[in-house]
Amino acid sequence: MNRFGISLEKKISRSHEVFVGRNILDRAALLIAKGGWARRYFLVSDARVAALHGERVAETLRKAGLSLESVTMPAGEEAKTMATAVAVAEELLRRGADRASGLIALGGGVTGDLTGFVASIYMRGIPCIQIPTTLLAQVDSSIGGKTGVNLPAAKNILGTFHQPKAVFADLEFLRTLPAREMVNGLAEIVKCAVIDDPGLLELLEERAEVLRRGDDLDALLPIVTRAGEIKKKIVEIDEKEQGLRRILNFGHTVGHAIEAASAYTLPHGEAVSIGMAAALALSQRLGHLPEADGERIVALLQKLGLPVRLPADLDREVIMARMEHDKKKTGGVTHFVLLKRPGVPFVNGGIPLEKVGEILPRPERKTPRREKTGGE
Amino acid sequence: MNRFGISLEKKISRSHEVFVGRNILDRAALLIAKGGWARRYFLVSDARVAALHGERVAETLRKAGLSLESVTMPAGEEAKTMATAVAVAEELLRRGADRASGLIALGGGVTGDLTGFVASIYMRGIPCIQIPTTLLAQVDSSIGGKTGVNLPAAKNILGTFHQPKAVFADLEFLRTLPAREMVNGLAEIVKCAVIDDPGLLELLEERAEVLRRGDDLDALLPIVTRAGEIKKKIVEIDEKEQGLRRILNFGHTVGHAIEAASAYTLPHGEAVSIGMAAALALSQRLGHLPEADGERIVALLQKLGLPVRLPADLDREVIMARMEHDKKKTGGVTHFVLLKRPGVPFVNGGIPLEKVGEILPRPERKTPRREKTGGE
Repeated sequence: MNRFGISLEKKISRSHEVFVGRNILDRAALLIAKGGWARRYFLVSDARVAALHGERVAETLRKAGLSLESVTMPAGEEAKTMATAVAVAEELLRRGADRASGLIALGGGVTGDLTGFVASIYMRGIPCIQIPTTLLAQVDSSIGGKTGVNLPAAKNILGTFHQPKAVFADLEFLRTLPAREMVNGLAEIVKCAVIDDPGLLELLEERAEVLRRGDDLDALLPIVTRAGEIKKKIVEIDEKEQGLRRILNFGHTVGHAIEAASAYTLPHGEAVSIGMAAALALSQRLGHLPEADGERIVALLQKLGLPVRLPADLDREVIMARMEHDKKKTGGVTHFVLLKRPGVPFVNGGIPLEKVGEILPRPERKTPRREKTGGE
Repeated sequence: MNRFGISLEKKISRSHEVFVGRNILDRAALLIAKGGWARRYFLVSDARVAALHGERVAETLRKAGLSLESVTMPAGEEAKTMATAVAVAEELLRRGADRASGLIALGGGVTGDLTGFVASIYMRGIPCIQIPTTLLAQVDSSIGGKTGVNLPAAKNILGTFHQPKAVFADLEFLRTLPAREMVNGLAEIVKCAVIDDPGLLELLEERAEVLRRGDDLDALLPIVTRAGEIKKKIVEIDEKEQGLRRILNFGHTVGHAIEAASAYTLPHGEAVSIGMAAALALSQRLGHLPEADGERIVALLQKLGLPVRLPADLDREVIMARMEHDKKKTGGVTHFVLLKRPGVPFVNGGIPLEKVGEILPRPERKTPRREKTGGE
């Protein structure tokens, strides 16, 4: 038997910058032009975002001298499929996109994840730039390089790690964001504060009323920046989620099960908010977290207009069955992110699901709070 | 505007080993078990290879203590689609494959490329091991980490670079390979010799008769090993085809156009053989290559049973139109790999397509040679 080694020890850089501000598109355009990452750009957005912002963004980018064409995909989580990814790729191919072309994702998490995925596989990888337009995408999905599409049986199951060349989070986009979408993003910001930054937690408590109203972008700026920096720090240490990055799943183990059990009618942020309340209750029940800390965070979620109890139409049994199902799929272990105190999370892989059943918050039997505050 | 950097400077290793030999599956199984790359393995092969070798390979791997299940996909280039990749991924999901699972590709280039692609996107990347069963896959496609699927409009247009954990090329598989498939692989071996190794070229000339017969695996062993080592060397320097790796496309610019113009009825190796004859003629015409060198390589191709002229049913005009089409798609530049002398190739991006038209070998007007020698 002959053998030979293929030596591929590489020093590679996927470093890039994230820009957060108001009315920063002019500067974004100049930075993209200066970046020189591609010779031609394709601006990918869904039909709704294209109608709201497409023309203006394209104009701004072209003014900086960029060669830019627009590609539109359908809107909504239902569109986050391999079929959509293939359709976008086929359109790129028709337009003659080559290895010197780049994509710019303009939109929410679905557009960002799908565009990043297409960029990562088109001709075995072309550059991608993120311009997130929802609060959730600005603080969470546009940062960290995770891309993906759903299969009918599981969300985000097919994807890649493909770091963007730059992220431009312009808060002005949030003016056209439905109130419920805004609240959706606040849940991930609370998560960042809870797992890493007691100072941000205080800031959120101070500004809760203003944030819930959602019209004060200046109040939001330091908060979006801080949340992004928290995610940045975790991604730098564990880009490919081999350990530490799991703490970003605080509230998500139960949250995902709730989301799935609602057939995705409950927005991600609201499901995660309920999931965080569950993770806090579990942390208290197991003696890790002082009750006052748990209550304080639950109070903040409520002040921000986020739900902390199951909607009336969701059965605990359905959610438990879903968690059981997820557990089987992931090698029989459910990883829970628990809390010792604000800023000190830890991962526990040994919690029996019965324990979770016990603390799962009971449904509101009256009008669910979220319907009063969502404002969609 | 706030800004923060995400620092992702990493030292990563994708180094791995390639094993070439006869009856090496027992040792492969032990090496996989020792490698510890995954807790569960899924052996992916097409229906034809599964019927020929699936049970025996699975048994051998299980004997070494590996947890192994088999997944079957349809055979043939037509199956190299995103739909097949999604079907394989859905089957993995149904069987509970998780991030601690790995894939083993058992088959030819289609199976290897598609399985590698699925491994690169399933849960954002799981390990993959290659067990190539065709000569073409053993010397070419299993080495270097290129994965991909076709779109109707273009081959291998969607894919990734995903290096395998190991490659096991067992020559015994070649016993069941149709003769025409064998010749197919010889074309890529000649290519390796021409671009990098005059010594291998001599060895091929010496053993041409034996190689063409295809039944002497001992004669093949040093040749397969050497061809793999040549590809290894190029991939080590330019893993992602940003420059040097392009020389592996010697004969492929015209070859791909011929393949496409034949609607993929002409096997890849035969198209590349004709493409190499064209690249040699072009190198001579432009005064780069001594005529004797070109004639010598053409003679070798013919001795090995490979075609060096267009099949009677393929029009030069159709091939020229295809190259024009490919050129438009890739930013208006066609890169030709030309030859100065055996072992000294160079890339030229400035050759007008008319020049190529002039040297394109005229079709055989009698019975095409390849039909006499293919032996399928």
